[in-house]
Amino acid sequence: MDDTTIFDGILSGEIPCHRIYEDEHVLAFLDIGPLSEGHALVIPRERAARIDALSDDSAAALGRVLPRICRAIMAVTGCSDYNILQNNGPAAHQEVQHVHFHVIPRSKDDAGLGMAWNPREFDHEHGARLAQMLRSELDIA
Amino acid sequence: MDDTTIFDGILSGEIPCHRIYEDEHVLAFLDIGPLSEGHALVIPRERAARIDALSDDSAAALGRVLPRICRAIMAVTGCSDYNILQNNGPAAHQEVQHVHFHVIPRSKDDAGLGMAWNPREFDHEHGARLAQMLRSELDIA
Repeated sequence: MDDTTIFDGILSGEIPCHRIYEDEHVLAFLDIGPLSEGHALVIPRERAARIDALSDDSAAALGRVLPRICRAIMAVTGCSDYNILQNNGPAAHQEVQHVHFHVIPRSKDDAGLGMAWNPREFDHEHGARLAQMLRSELDIA
Repeated sequence: MDDTTIFDGILSGEIPCHRIYEDEHVLAFLDIGPLSEGHALVIPRERAARIDALSDDSAAALGRVLPRICRAIMAVTGCSDYNILQNNGPAAHQEVQHVHFHVIPRSKDDAGLGMAWNPREFDHEHGARLAQMLRSELDIA
């Protein structure tokens, strides 16, 4: 299976983008299907379809620049509120198979990103077992 | 204005949580208003209401552990798809005023997190000006 995506072309420069930031590990550019003014994508140079396949170093580099990129978007667009969203897999609305963080400026009742929050009941006994299994996976006591 | 939140109590241990990971900079635990099985929160120990106020070091530490935490959630819950979501401000659905990344396992047609994607037209001339202003803010040529 060919795992190249449009982002490979953007990273190599073969496909143009409206670049806003770059460093050794990270490229950021405007989303051309924007949900709002200033909607940007922040991607690793490392090729990984999903964040669970990304190296620690690339993931740390992405995390490190997110606050700076958000401050710049706030300063330029005047937005105060925004979502950071990173989708993995079809059930999570991932479209391009290369890790990307969306930074999506928001305003009250905007039409771009709709979000509904429907929490379920939490069972503390079940939660304690689940957390124990997760701690074991993550090797903490 | 008192800027303490429930997460200060969780970080100090005064308020219990279903802890799944911790290190010098980061704590992760189960969301007790879960959108799905395994819904977790990943927070910095540093007190900052929004990611634009977070230090580079805390932000990098959060980024670094996200892939590990996602892999653990996939292994334990069996989910393959998930969203990472970080909300800043009321228009972006932020409820607790301390930076937190949600990791939200997803399955097809699940009822927890609803998401609608309504992109707008993109004007390349406007986009080029916007990107130039963002590059200036971010100090890249």
